[in-house]
Amino acid sequence: MINAYAAEKPRGPLKPFEYNPGPLGPEDVEINVEYCGICHSDLSMLDNEWQASSYPLVPGHEIIGVVGAMGQSVKNLRMGQRVGLGWFSSSCLHCSQCLAGDHNLCAGAQATIMGRHGGFADKVRAHWLWAVPLPKTLDAAKAGPLFCGGLTVFNPFLQLGIRPLDRVGIIGIGGLGHLALQFARAWGCEVTAFSSTQSKEAEARSFGAHHFISSGELGKVSGQFDFILSTVSADLDWSAYLTALAPKGRLHFVGVPASPISTHAFPLIGGQKSLSGSPLGSPGNASKMLDFAARHSILPTVEMFKLAAVNEALDHLRSGQARYRVVLEQ
Amino acid sequence: MINAYAAEKPRGPLKPFEYNPGPLGPEDVEINVEYCGICHSDLSMLDNEWQASSYPLVPGHEIIGVVGAMGQSVKNLRMGQRVGLGWFSSSCLHCSQCLAGDHNLCAGAQATIMGRHGGFADKVRAHWLWAVPLPKTLDAAKAGPLFCGGLTVFNPFLQLGIRPLDRVGIIGIGGLGHLALQFARAWGCEVTAFSSTQSKEAEARSFGAHHFISSGELGKVSGQFDFILSTVSADLDWSAYLTALAPKGRLHFVGVPASPISTHAFPLIGGQKSLSGSPLGSPGNASKMLDFAARHSILPTVEMFKLAAVNEALDHLRSGQARYRVVLEQ
Repeated sequence: MINAYAAEKPRGPLKPFEYNPGPLGPEDVEINVEYCGICHSDLSMLDNEWQASSYPLVPGHEIIGVVGAMGQSVKNLRMGQRVGLGWFSSSCLHCSQCLAGDHNLCAGAQATIMGRHGGFADKVRAHWLWAVPLPKTLDAAKAGPLFCGGLTVFNPFLQLGIRPLDRVGIIGIGGLGHLALQFARAWGCEVTAFSSTQSKEAEARSFGAHHFISSGELGKVSGQFDFILSTVSADLDWSAYLTALAPKGRLHFVGVPASPISTHAFPLIGGQKSLSGSPLGSPGNASKMLDFAARHSILPTVEMFKLAAVNEALDHLRSGQARYRVVLEQ
Repeated sequence: MINAYAAEKPRGPLKPFEYNPGPLGPEDVEINVEYCGICHSDLSMLDNEWQASSYPLVPGHEIIGVVGAMGQSVKNLRMGQRVGLGWFSSSCLHCSQCLAGDHNLCAGAQATIMGRHGGFADKVRAHWLWAVPLPKTLDAAKAGPLFCGGLTVFNPFLQLGIRPLDRVGIIGIGGLGHLALQFARAWGCEVTAFSSTQSKEAEARSFGAHHFISSGELGKVSGQFDFILSTVSADLDWSAYLTALAPKGRLHFVGVPASPISTHAFPLIGGQKSLSGSPLGSPGNASKMLDFAARHSILPTVEMFKLAAVNEALDHLRSGQARYRVVLEQ
């Protein structure tokens, strides 16, 4: 049996919940959970914001633990090995996306907390490919958020060919943004933090920003950025950010604003600019991210809560006061 | 003196107009105009649609002619050589865009018919770099439209790394679209024409389309295209085209719809998709396009008018009946 915390209904409190996961599949591993980060998408799923939740719902997809059981066809892992598990826990392995290494774009990729139970538990299961070994030099207590928030902001650097020469802007200094600033700085870029909160300037600089631009100053900026990454869910003045881009620049979304993004075609055409988005990353790119994070000592700033205090931890995240990522420990 | 045809006011008829171009600059060439295509942007400029016109206005930026005079610092050209001149006629040569070979993205690039006089004339001038030699095997009478419409639709193939493996969709079978279909087919791609006009299917196939999808069928298509190029000025159902894209797909604009383009972030994020645009191309890429067009016998389908019948030619283009590009000859 697996001992978890589940919500029985949308916005309901989490309560102890025991379930029988059945026999372990031949390609699956069971992870003994040590730590699990809380992501905003756990809240979205708990609240059924995307109409994709089923209850009882066990959240948790920024999981660190050790391999406790392995099916007979598992590759690359050994018993007791420390691994991480993020948003996805399996993919088809045979579609053109999987074959190209883009498993995260597989139409059949299964989310860890959709139609199955996640990491707010003592154990969780996944296909072996998605249980990614954690470098020994990364602090296990803090590494969980790298598997969702971290991979989400790192993957665009790989996918879009960002170069150390590039002038990179990061919109939002929160759970995702504070990791994006660290990655961008370590990538060798000239890094600017965009925030509506002037008081975050010092922290933004501590995470790696060379420059800080508050919302009020945005209108003065034009033609400067090769790549702007938006990590926020707010509806901002996207036209102003397009103006801030240099020729061939790209405004890229990993955060989901509530309203549609709208632009006339001229700003795109005139400067050969792009608007785009991306979801998480593949297991292969998760490994690359972890190696890079370990080499550059990149970790989230976290606040720890006991798993038994999960409701308190969720309330803290909902309050907007988390600095910057909340992690549950057993 | 240069003998041209100019409009005296927005939407005014073109009338004979003589002007003194002054002494030839040391880096400039004077081209004796043989042929000049008419582009929709000539109409936009004549009508002052973009609030960027000054009168008297001499349109014409799809120019073919021979070098008739050269300043003392002109490079790469010789007297009597046949060249083409497109939307731009000079650029600063020292900004980072020019230095990178992206002269068409230079903030100081000068449009041939903005603040200076274009190719509806017996002569026109330009910086030598923008007077691009025409391969001998390309029919000079038909080649003019390659320098604006052709370059506009060819440049994205270079800029965006389109591969012969890609499934490419072309929206619109007009002056730009009928060239884009030919380029995409010769590039080795699987080519689909999108059109609101079912009766254009046979012609679309003759230009190289393997498949034809009418507007009514668009809703049935999803996840199929790596690259969709829109050449139209109509406001279409862009969400449906985003849905038609495969993971990592791109919807790219060279035509300018009247209304803003709007999308929720989710379709971009979920499939790692992009919305983008681009303007024309550099002189270097114009040369590449001309070589490619010559090798693959790519030319526009044109209707010829005498320069003296320019008003009749403009009316024909305005009527929407041009198949597919109108060219003026001396």
